[in-house]
Amino acid sequence: MPDILERHDEAGIATLTLADPDTLNSLSDAMLAALAAALDDIAASDARAVILRAKGRAFCAGHNLREMQAMRQAPDGGAASFADLFDRCTGVMTRIRDLPQPVIAEVHALATAAGCQLVATCDMAIAADDARFGVNGVNIGLFCSTPMVALSRNVPRKRAMEMLTTGGFLSAAEAVEAGLVNRAVPADRLAAETRELAETVAAKLAAAVRIGKGAFYAQLERPLDEAYALTRDAMVANLAEPDTDEGMAAFLEKRPPRWTQ
Amino acid sequence: MPDILERHDEAGIATLTLADPDTLNSLSDAMLAALAAALDDIAASDARAVILRAKGRAFCAGHNLREMQAMRQAPDGGAASFADLFDRCTGVMTRIRDLPQPVIAEVHALATAAGCQLVATCDMAIAADDARFGVNGVNIGLFCSTPMVALSRNVPRKRAMEMLTTGGFLSAAEAVEAGLVNRAVPADRLAAETRELAETVAAKLAAAVRIGKGAFYAQLERPLDEAYALTRDAMVANLAEPDTDEGMAAFLEKRPPRWTQ
Amino acid sequence: MPDILERHDEAGIATLTLADPDTLNSLSDAMLAALAAALDDIAASDARAVILRAKGRAFCAGHNLREMQAMRQAPDGGAASFADLFDRCTGVMTRIRDLPQPVIAEVHALATAAGCQLVATCDMAIAADDARFGVNGVNIGLFCSTPMVALSRNVPRKRAMEMLTTGGFLSAAEAVEAGLVNRAVPADRLAAETRELAETVAAKLAAAVRIGKGAFYAQLERPLDEAYALTRDAMVANLAEPDTDEGMAAFLEKRPPRWTQ
Repeated sequence: MPDILERHDEAGIATLTLADPDTLNSLSDAMLAALAAALDDIAASDARAVILRAKGRAFCAGHNLREMQAMRQAPDGGAASFADLFDRCTGVMTRIRDLPQPVIAEVHALATAAGCQLVATCDMAIAADDARFGVNGVNIGLFCSTPMVALSRNVPRKRAMEMLTTGGFLSAAEAVEAGLVNRAVPADRLAAETRELAETVAAKLAAAVRIGKGAFYAQLERPLDEAYALTRDAMVANLAEPDTDEGMAAFLEKRPPRWTQ
Repeated sequence: MPDILERHDEAGIATLTLADPDTLNSLSDAMLAALAAALDDIAASDARAVILRAKGRAFCAGHNLREMQAMRQAPDGGAASFADLFDRCTGVMTRIRDLPQPVIAEVHALATAAGCQLVATCDMAIAADDARFGVNGVNIGLFCSTPMVALSRNVPRKRAMEMLTTGGFLSAAEAVEAGLVNRAVPADRLAAETRELAETVAAKLAAAVRIGKGAFYAQLERPLDEAYALTRDAMVANLAEPDTDEGMAAFLEKRPPRWTQ
Repeated sequence: MPDILERHDEAGIATLTLADPDTLNSLSDAMLAALAAALDDIAASDARAVILRAKGRAFCAGHNLREMQAMRQAPDGGAASFADLFDRCTGVMTRIRDLPQPVIAEVHALATAAGCQLVATCDMAIAADDARFGVNGVNIGLFCSTPMVALSRNVPRKRAMEMLTTGGFLSAAEAVEAGLVNRAVPADRLAAETRELAETVAAKLAAAVRIGKGAFYAQLERPLDEAYALTRDAMVANLAEPDTDEGMAAFLEKRPPRWTQ
């Protein structure tokens, strides 16, 4: 893995750090490839929770405009390359959704355009209280159409539309209120609070979390009756785990569970 | 009806009281059967609004774990019984959605797991300001997959995911802010405020409320154009009610309506 | 265009003013026809943003009850006319959604029933801080079934259900919190703040806004994977605009863009 994406595993928590501060951690071809590879590795690992953080003056400023402008040299003006780029970017986003482990964004400074999409896509997010969030591509003539897919599934639609059409930013407090992040904390507490949340999740039964996260996104897109059929099957699968039997027995016997996972 | 579920009808308001405090009003086989039967009775009655409340130290603590663990003795480890249990539980939840009358949850103390699902499923909810809400099955190794169907249709998804993966609780104030309940009131005002809301609803034209509630949930799951076609037909049916004609005429004549219902 | 709907175009902003104060700007047959015609004209114009405002004691009080009661004289009791009325009203609402330009509601005083639907349907809304919002048809025996289609896509469902079944009103502050409007401002600042928002939007690249707005509503109703495929295509189309090339180049060269639109 190139060093523009650092990985550190400890105590069941995989931490991915965007480390390309010179481009404000842009989602360049290399970064998208590194993220896809790292997420595939984590999916197959015994990590129980994931933190996505970043180095430098921004969490992530979205796509790499220099690389995109270079694509315009192709005979088709870049159309095929652009389509491929967005498919690769969507591939990273859906890998986060499909990952068995919950992914927590640890957001400092600035998350813009596809960087804001990354925050919206993570299962949870903690922000430094001076962080700001925008889908501001409209300011350079490129509406944030792919980022809005994730954004509009997190925040009320009039709020999303204002961000998209004005290029304006949400403060961390506004992002909390809008539902884009779970909470805002003082910048010097950001890493510790995110870690604490990850540790809480990592302490749960991994099989239960994996089954539940998968069912969460599947049921969200279904009518109520299908959603209940789907989650009934998830419950039955979860109950078939020997560790769940042990967890329920332990609760009834008022003792801590002895889990094997 | 067994006395674990009490029913009291007065002035067009049917009040159901979960009365199995020794199990924290668990959704046992008996309670699910009693709820299904009571809701079927109410659907066919002339009640105009429903209050769902509870006795004891919790509003409802979800499924009955003792009964569930006993199901594991079957040759299939309980799989068939579990599937049947969740179908019966879903049957109660969809009865609430399909009931002609609005159902208001009056929530005190604690609503957890399928108890929180019950709150999320009701059309409206008033909470005591010291009530707490959780989908904390993950703490014993059983992700609250069926409860999240209702929860995730009430609250923003990152908030729901944090509750589900951490087992953490919302205070009543947080539940209001998240959209899970309509408002929080002092505990000693809970019954009175819930009754006042039920009386307000019960004073409306029952046919209008019945048509509207049915259309509400149907249109929510449809694309915009289908939603408008469906609600156009609901409006036309509503307008065909003689009492609606009278209500509109009375409004234009600046007098109170003389309704027959 | 009849003078019950005034249009004023200035600096790329088309302002439509409901000007039938004697009926509280009811959505009469004439008003619906005027709105449909004006929106069709604007769609084909070079306007870059639209403001929808109103004159008199209310922003809009919904359908014209006098006209509706007159429809009851038909042999079918008005059923065909009512269905046609709601289809025409839906036609106005979907024209707002389908308009290439963002539409901002400037809401003073009162927005009720289909008037509240109009606010919910606009892409953005600014409210005077003494404005109130209701879907109170239930008070006269006519549940606001068509208005709730737009309302329930803006605000959490328990909040919507309470408004619909009680006929109660939201204050401007509550409407902000619920997601129905973007913000509330002092009444004497309403016109200026709305204009400022419209000017901000009108200063963006019109092609980008048009492509983005269209994709916004299309993707909202699609599963995630289809939403990404659809917005990928929107991004590729947006990138093919010469002005977008110029916008991106200008950004990289740290200079203002020279746009032709």
